[in-house]
Amino acid sequence: MSSTPRSTLGRLSERARTDRADLYAVLDAGLVCHLGIVLDGAPVVLPTGYGRDGDTLYLHGSTGASTLRAAATGIPVCVTVTHLDGVVYARSVFHHSMNYRSAVVHGTARLVTDEQQRLDGLRALVEQLAPGSWTHARLPDRKELAATTVLALDLAEASVKVRTGPPGDDAEDVANPAYWAGVLPVRMVWGEAEPAPDLAPGTPTPDHVSARPRPGVHAAHEG
Amino acid sequence: MSSTPRSTLGRLSERARTDRADLYAVLDAGLVCHLGIVLDGAPVVLPTGYGRDGDTLYLHGSTGASTLRAAATGIPVCVTVTHLDGVVYARSVFHHSMNYRSAVVHGTARLVTDEQQRLDGLRALVEQLAPGSWTHARLPDRKELAATTVLALDLAEASVKVRTGPPGDDAEDVANPAYWAGVLPVRMVWGEAEPAPDLAPGTPTPDHVSARPRPGVHAAHEG
Repeated sequence: MSSTPRSTLGRLSERARTDRADLYAVLDAGLVCHLGIVLDGAPVVLPTGYGRDGDTLYLHGSTGASTLRAAATGIPVCVTVTHLDGVVYARSVFHHSMNYRSAVVHGTARLVTDEQQRLDGLRALVEQLAPGSWTHARLPDRKELAATTVLALDLAEASVKVRTGPPGDDAEDVANPAYWAGVLPVRMVWGEAEPAPDLAPGTPTPDHVSARPRPGVHAAHEG
Repeated sequence: MSSTPRSTLGRLSERARTDRADLYAVLDAGLVCHLGIVLDGAPVVLPTGYGRDGDTLYLHGSTGASTLRAAATGIPVCVTVTHLDGVVYARSVFHHSMNYRSAVVHGTARLVTDEQQRLDGLRALVEQLAPGSWTHARLPDRKELAATTVLALDLAEASVKVRTGPPGDDAEDVANPAYWAGVLPVRMVWGEAEPAPDLAPGTPTPDHVSARPRPGVHAAHEG
């Protein structure tokens, strides 16, 4: 990843990861990103889906969405993906922390107009949200495509931060047996699939839904 | 909540909630917010902890953190908290969606200097991240307090969006038995507490850790 002042960590730089594989892993394990743009001088941060194809991050939305319209005009954006992995309980409240993985991508989103690239982007978006749906579900028709804005963002300027492990307590606090310290892990899990009320009774839930690997973990890291 | 153009939904306004109780519920159920600020004209979105006390949202960080320093200068900020509740599989990729709850707060963060309010803010932050720790763990000493920036943000301009329920498919797709449709719920769960390696063997895990209600759901909504 390129190193610019805003993508270089000013604090706790031991938490920074610089491998592109780490960036891909954090992005690929996520379902929601937080998209930041500047509107009238003020920041706006909205949750939205995303997809990755190589070194391109795709965003999409309705052609009527003002945020997407603004982002499509070539203004700077920031896309952040965060996985919370645990709450770090220290002996002191000061050293309480979180275990997490996060990726922050800076850049300028561009409106994708090439029809093939629009489809590539939509496929990446759909497969990030719902792997297998691009094959299983009905693909977008001309009217649906016309109603959809697709934006692309190069993964050129990005930073990854990861915290793992136990709390870092002060020695005098460690010596005091009154305090508990450790990590309470947290993870995302799927519940049981809920068929739509208008689905024909007896319709089996397909494997790409019922056997979906749990979110928040990149497949290669699942072990 | 006040209604301003940026906190009023331009799209899908049926997803908007206007009760203050909904805002509190989304905020109180969260562990991480995404803080947006503008630095050199570009948005920066970073994950961070937060806490709520009445109609005040608290943020904190090291006095050395440039983002926090910037936010403390009275510039506009946006704080967004998102809970993902499910992936919505539709018959068409176009109608794929997510079930979620999100709160977006706009305002100007102010540096908290009053010592009592700084403690109130830190307590709210610690109790959001680790309920029970303000009582169990060692409270901050003078040096730790001096190293901590506490910011406050009024919950004056905020919006809440919620999507629940099955996909909204087109009639012709519903009639086609080739497609599955439904919701794959997702939630956060705690793993088993991991005592710190330097904790004395046999130290019991306190109830506020081992019996912690699961994240993502406000206690009053847990049922």
